[in-house]
Amino acid sequence: MNHQALDGIMTPRSIAVIGASSTPGKIGYTVLSNLINQGYKGKIFPINPGAEEILGLKAYPSVLDVPEDIDAAVITIPAKIVIPAVEECGKKGVKGLVIITSGFSEVGKRELEEELVQKAHEYNMRILGPNIVGVLANSSGMNASFAPYLPLPGKASLVSQSGALLIAIDASTYVRGVGFDKLISIGNMSDLDFADIIEWLNDDPNTTAITLYIEGFKNGRRFMDVCRRTNKPIIALKAGVSSHGAAAAASHTGSLAGAAKVYGAAFQQAGVVQASDLDNLFDRTLALSLQPPMKGDNLLIITNGGGVGVLATDAAEKYGVPLKFAPAEVQEELKKHMPEFGSAKNPVDLTGMAGTEWYHNAIKFAYAHPWVDGLVVLYCETAVTDPMEIAQGIKSAIDNSGANGKPVTVSFVGGERSDKAMRWLVDHGIPAYGAPDRAVNAIAALNEYARNKTLLAEPITLCGGENRNEALQIIERARAEGRDSLTEIEAKQVFALYGLPVTKTLLAKTEDEAVSLAREIGYPVVMKIVSPDILHKSDAGGVKVNLKDEQSVREAFRTIMANAKAYKADARIHGIAIQEMAPWGTEVILGSVNDATFGPTMMFGLGGIFVEVLKDVTFRVAPVSTSQALRMLGEIRGAPILAGVRGEEPRDKRALAETICSYSTMILDLADEISESDANPVLVYAEGKGVKVVDARIILKKK
Amino acid sequence: MNHQALDGIMTPRSIAVIGASSTPGKIGYTVLSNLINQGYKGKIFPINPGAEEILGLKAYPSVLDVPEDIDAAVITIPAKIVIPAVEECGKKGVKGLVIITSGFSEVGKRELEEELVQKAHEYNMRILGPNIVGVLANSSGMNASFAPYLPLPGKASLVSQSGALLIAIDASTYVRGVGFDKLISIGNMSDLDFADIIEWLNDDPNTTAITLYIEGFKNGRRFMDVCRRTNKPIIALKAGVSSHGAAAAASHTGSLAGAAKVYGAAFQQAGVVQASDLDNLFDRTLALSLQPPMKGDNLLIITNGGGVGVLATDAAEKYGVPLKFAPAEVQEELKKHMPEFGSAKNPVDLTGMAGTEWYHNAIKFAYAHPWVDGLVVLYCETAVTDPMEIAQGIKSAIDNSGANGKPVTVSFVGGERSDKAMRWLVDHGIPAYGAPDRAVNAIAALNEYARNKTLLAEPITLCGGENRNEALQIIERARAEGRDSLTEIEAKQVFALYGLPVTKTLLAKTEDEAVSLAREIGYPVVMKIVSPDILHKSDAGGVKVNLKDEQSVREAFRTIMANAKAYKADARIHGIAIQEMAPWGTEVILGSVNDATFGPTMMFGLGGIFVEVLKDVTFRVAPVSTSQALRMLGEIRGAPILAGVRGEEPRDKRALAETICSYSTMILDLADEISESDANPVLVYAEGKGVKVVDARIILKKK
Repeated sequence: MNHQALDGIMTPRSIAVIGASSTPGKIGYTVLSNLINQGYKGKIFPINPGAEEILGLKAYPSVLDVPEDIDAAVITIPAKIVIPAVEECGKKGVKGLVIITSGFSEVGKRELEEELVQKAHEYNMRILGPNIVGVLANSSGMNASFAPYLPLPGKASLVSQSGALLIAIDASTYVRGVGFDKLISIGNMSDLDFADIIEWLNDDPNTTAITLYIEGFKNGRRFMDVCRRTNKPIIALKAGVSSHGAAAAASHTGSLAGAAKVYGAAFQQAGVVQASDLDNLFDRTLALSLQPPMKGDNLLIITNGGGVGVLATDAAEKYGVPLKFAPAEVQEELKKHMPEFGSAKNPVDLTGMAGTEWYHNAIKFAYAHPWVDGLVVLYCETAVTDPMEIAQGIKSAIDNSGANGKPVTVSFVGGERSDKAMRWLVDHGIPAYGAPDRAVNAIAALNEYARNKTLLAEPITLCGGENRNEALQIIERARAEGRDSLTEIEAKQVFALYGLPVTKTLLAKTEDEAVSLAREIGYPVVMKIVSPDILHKSDAGGVKVNLKDEQSVREAFRTIMANAKAYKADARIHGIAIQEMAPWGTEVILGSVNDATFGPTMMFGLGGIFVEVLKDVTFRVAPVSTSQALRMLGEIRGAPILAGVRGEEPRDKRALAETICSYSTMILDLADEISESDANPVLVYAEGKGVKVVDARIILKKK
Repeated sequence: MNHQALDGIMTPRSIAVIGASSTPGKIGYTVLSNLINQGYKGKIFPINPGAEEILGLKAYPSVLDVPEDIDAAVITIPAKIVIPAVEECGKKGVKGLVIITSGFSEVGKRELEEELVQKAHEYNMRILGPNIVGVLANSSGMNASFAPYLPLPGKASLVSQSGALLIAIDASTYVRGVGFDKLISIGNMSDLDFADIIEWLNDDPNTTAITLYIEGFKNGRRFMDVCRRTNKPIIALKAGVSSHGAAAAASHTGSLAGAAKVYGAAFQQAGVVQASDLDNLFDRTLALSLQPPMKGDNLLIITNGGGVGVLATDAAEKYGVPLKFAPAEVQEELKKHMPEFGSAKNPVDLTGMAGTEWYHNAIKFAYAHPWVDGLVVLYCETAVTDPMEIAQGIKSAIDNSGANGKPVTVSFVGGERSDKAMRWLVDHGIPAYGAPDRAVNAIAALNEYARNKTLLAEPITLCGGENRNEALQIIERARAEGRDSLTEIEAKQVFALYGLPVTKTLLAKTEDEAVSLAREIGYPVVMKIVSPDILHKSDAGGVKVNLKDEQSVREAFRTIMANAKAYKADARIHGIAIQEMAPWGTEVILGSVNDATFGPTMMFGLGGIFVEVLKDVTFRVAPVSTSQALRMLGEIRGAPILAGVRGEEPRDKRALAETICSYSTMILDLADEISESDANPVLVYAEGKGVKVVDARIILKKK
C-alpha cells in the first residue's frame, strides 16, 4: 500500500484547509480554528481565493500558490467544485486528502465520487472520505475535523463509519473516562477503507488497540487478511444486525445466512473481538488497550461483598469464562487474608471487613500463582474503607507480585469516591468498571482475543480440488442450455470432482439402461426423476426408494416417467437417476452462499428440524481448514448429537470436517460460478465409517 | 398482616437506638448520628446504660426508661444480648425492630434467631433483619442505618438482600443519577421478607416502583401472591443463576430445573419484570418508576443520527419489541420535519441537521398518533445543537401533544452537556440513558410489564382433580411397601385420577391373565415388566411392543419373565403390564419438581433430543391454567414443531394444554406427597385427536 499517502493524512507535517473561512459556523472556519487552537504543531495553510488572511494566518487562493510542501489537504468546499481542487492538490504534490464535503454517493452521486477517486489516484493521492467529520489525533494535537475538541487521551484509536456517532463519542469520552489517541471518520470509504486504516494503525506507536464502528463494507476478504496480520487487538461493533427491513433471501442456506452471522464468523476467523453494544464497545476497548490477553481459562475473582461476587459469577458463565474452584493450596494461602467467615473458594470473599492490606496480600499472591490466568477484583464501597487506598493497594499488589503478562480488571460499585479511584486505576493501566459483570465481560474479551489468536496461528490446510476445468465444463454445459442451476447428477459430479463423498448416481435414459446401471451400482437402489423443470421431485411422484431387484427397477422406471408426465406435460426430462441407497446415518446439512461482503461462505447444521425449526447453524468464510471445521461442529446447540446420544456410537466428525474443508475449496475455486449450494442431507456414520452426500444442489451466478 | 408494626419500622414517629454510642466508628454512633444529622423529624432516644447524654441527646439505660412512646427500635448491640433488649422493647410497646446486629443464622446460629423471632412475636412486634444495614427514607429524611448518607431522591424504593451492595448502591445513586425514596436492607429475613415489604410499599405514597435485589428466599408462593396483588411495577435482579457450585440434581426434570428458570417463570407469573444485571436494574427501575406501561407493540424511534438509529433497531429486536415501518400517513406527516435525505420509515431519521424545532414537531405529532404505543427519542450530541434545548423540546412536545399514558424513553450520546440535559429530563419524569440500546431496553421493560399484567388479568381456571383420596390410597400402599416411587401402573392410575389421558395399562400376574387383558384392551399391545427393583425396563429385556395376537402375548410373557429373572434374580416382580399400543404422535415430555422456594412446578419440553441435547424446556409454578399452558407451548425454541412441520397437520395444542393444566392440579393437590414426576413420552396427535401419556413416573417425598 501507499503508506506515504496515509502518513500524509494521519501524521501530516503540514495541512492545507481548502475552503478555510473566517465566518464562524462554517465548517471551513471550524476546521481551521480547531487546527490552530488545539495544539497542532505542523504548518497550516488556509486556502481561499477571496481572502488574504484568515484567523491570523496568511491565506492562499490555491494550494498551487503555497510556497512550501503540503502533506494533507482537508477539503470543505461544496461537492461540485471538489474535483478541480483535487486536481490542483495533485499538481502541488499533496500526499493525502481528507474530504469532509458531503453530497457524493450517500445522496446517489456515485459517478461524481468515482471521478473524484480517479482524479486522486492519477496523482498517487489517497482519499479519506468524502462525507466525513475528519481526523483527530491526541498524539499530535491535531483536530483536523469539525468535531469541537480532541477526545480524552487514551491508547486505543477509533475508526467510525458514522460521523454523527464519532462526534458524540468524542464528547462522551470525557464522561465515560475511556480515551482514544485517534478518532478517524471514514464516511463513504470511496478509497481508504477499514482495512487500509487498520494496516496503518498497526504500525502506529500511539495506538495499542483498534476500535471499529461498522455499518457495512464491501471487500471483506481484504479486511480479514489485514486483521489477521495485525498484531494489535481489534474490537468491532457491527450495527445493523436485526432483520428489520432486511431483504428476503433466495435459497435455503441463503435464508439462514443473515449479515450478523456471516460478519460474526468473519470477525472470529480474522481474530477480531466483537462488542454487543455501544457501552460494551467502550468497556472492551478499555480492557484490550490496557491489558494483555488472557491465555488460559482459570479466572479468579476477589471481592469484599458476597452480592457482587455472585453477580460476577453469573456473568462469568454468561460470557464464556465459567468459574472453577481454586485449587486447595491457593485456597489455603488466601484464607490467611480474610476473617473466618470469608470464603477462599472462588469467588474469593474477603468480606466487608477487608481493608487495603487484605486486598493487597490476596491479590499479590493470586496474581503470581500459576493456576490463575486472569484476575477480576471487585469492591463494594463501604463507609470504613477509602476507595482510592484500595485502588492503590490493587495496583501495588500487581506491581509487587513479581508476575506479569496476565490480565486484571476491576469493578468498584460506589459513588464519587469510587469513580475517582477507578479513573486513577485506568490512568495506571488497570481497566475499572462501575458494575461487576462489566469487569467480567471485559476480561472475557481478553480471553476471547487470546482464543481467536490461537485459532489464527493454526495453518490453513486445504483439501481436494485439482479438477477445476472438468467442473467448469459441467457448468458451461448447463449454462449453454440456458439453465441457472445444475441437476442433482451434475451437482454431484461437481462435488465429486472436489473429493466430496457423494452417493454413486448415474443417469438412465431407458428402462434397460436403468437395469444395467442398477446392477453396476448394486442393489438396493433409489430412483429419481432428472428434469430441470421438476424441482420438487417427491411431490411429482418422481422418487422411489429401496428397490431391490430388476423387476422393481423396471416398474419404478415406468411409474416415475408416467408420474412426471402427469405432473408437468412439457417438462424436459433428462432421464432417471439410479442412485446407491445409502444406509441410515445422522442427517446434517452443508451449504454455501456467496456473501456480498465476504464471498464464498460455508454453512453447517444438523439436518431436519434442527435446521428447519431451530435454525441451529454456523458459518465460516471459505476456505475452512479441517481443524476449523471441527470447531464448527462443536458450535451448534445440537453438537452433542455428533458425539453420540441414546447409546449411539460417536459420529465420524473427522470425515465430516474433511468434507466441509473440501466443500469450502470447491466454492472458493468456483467463486465466479456458484451463487449458492446445498448438500442436504449429508449422512454421517459412526467413527471411521465416513459420510455420504445424498442430495446436492448448485445454483449458478447470473451471468 | 400487621401493618402497624411495619409502619413503625418504615415511617416511625420515634426511634430508639439501642446501643447508641458516643464513640465514632461504632455502628451505634453512626446510626444515631445519621438520624440526628440527616433530616429525621421524629423523636430520637439513645439507649445506653453507661451514658447520660450522647451526641447532645439525653440517653436512657433501657427503653423502659423512656417516658414517651417508641415506634421503632434500631438494635446495634452484640448478638448475645439482643434477646433481653427485645423483651424490654416488647414490654415498652415498641412496634417494630430494626436489628442491625449480625451473628445469627448467617453464621449458623439458627436457634438464636428463632428464639429472637419468637420473643418479638410474643409482643406482636415484627423484625427487619437481623444482619442488616438498616432503613433509609428520603421522604422522612430518615437514615436509620450505618450507610453514610441518604440516596439521591427518586420515586422507586429498593429492597436488598445484600447489605454491602445496598451501601454501594446508595453511593452510586449520585453518580448514576438514579434515585430512590427508600433503601431497605432485609438481611437474614428472620421475620419480615420480600413479600411483607412489597405489600407495605404498595401502599406507600412515596414509592411508584419497587426494586428488588434477590439472592434467594423460602416462601415463593406468598411472594407471588403479594406481587400479583401489587399495582406498582416490581423489578427484580436475581443473583446466583450460574451453575457454578450448584448441587447435582436427582431426577430428569429436576436436572433441568435450575434456580434461574424457576425464578424466571415465577417472576413472569407474578408480573415481576426481570433485570439482567446491575446496570440494567437501574435502567429499568428508572423507566418503571417514571413512565406508564407500553400497552401495544408499536415502537417508534426518532433520531438525528443514522448510526444510533441502527443500533437502536438492533436492540429493539434483541429486547422483544422489533420495529415495524410506520404507516404511510405517519411517514407523510413526519417528512415535514426533516430534510429531503431524512427517513420517515422507522427509525425516523431527522438527520444531523435536526434542531429543537424539528425534534419538537416530530415528537409532538408522533406521541399523539394512535399507531404509536411507545416512543424512543435518540440524540447524538453535535457542535451546532444544545443538548439542554433539545431536552426541553422533547419535554414540551410531549406535554403539548394532547396525549398521555404512553411511555417515552430517551438516549443522548455525548459529553457533559448531554449528561446535564439527561439529568434534567429525569428530573422532569423522562428516563434518559447514555446509549441507544439502553433506552430501547428500558421501554422494552415497560412493554414486558404491560404484557405480564395482561397475563395476570386472565382468570386461572383449573382442570380435573376430584379424586384426591383415591390417589392418596395408591401412594399409601406404595409407602407401606417401603417404596419411595410408584410403579408405572400406579403412576398412571394417579395421573388418570386427575384426568390425564394415559394409555390403558393393566397388570397381568399370569400368562392367561395377560391374554385376557390383551383382549380387553385390544390388539396390538405393549408388554412391560412391573418391578420396583427394575427401573431400566428395556435394558433388562423387560419390554415387548406391537404384539398382535394371543400367541405373541404368551411368548412375550414367558420371555419377559425369564429376562427379568436373569437380569436380577431377587427382583420383586409385581407382574407384567399389558398396555394399549398408542399410535405414533409427536413426542413431548411433561414433568414436575417440588421447588424449594416455589413448590410444585411444571415443566414442558419436546421429547427426545430436544430435551436430552438442547434442554429446550419451559417452566411454570403450579397451578397452570389452560391459557397459560398454551403460552408455555409457544415459549420453547422447538415451538414450530407443534404447529406442524414437513407437511404434518398441526398438533392438538389445546388437548396438550389441558393435560398440562390437569397435571399441575395433580402436583398441587398432592404437593405433600409427590417430590418429582415425569410423563415421558406424551404423544400429541393432530388437532382434535388429543394426546396420550405413554409412560409415567412419580417419585414420592421422603417422609
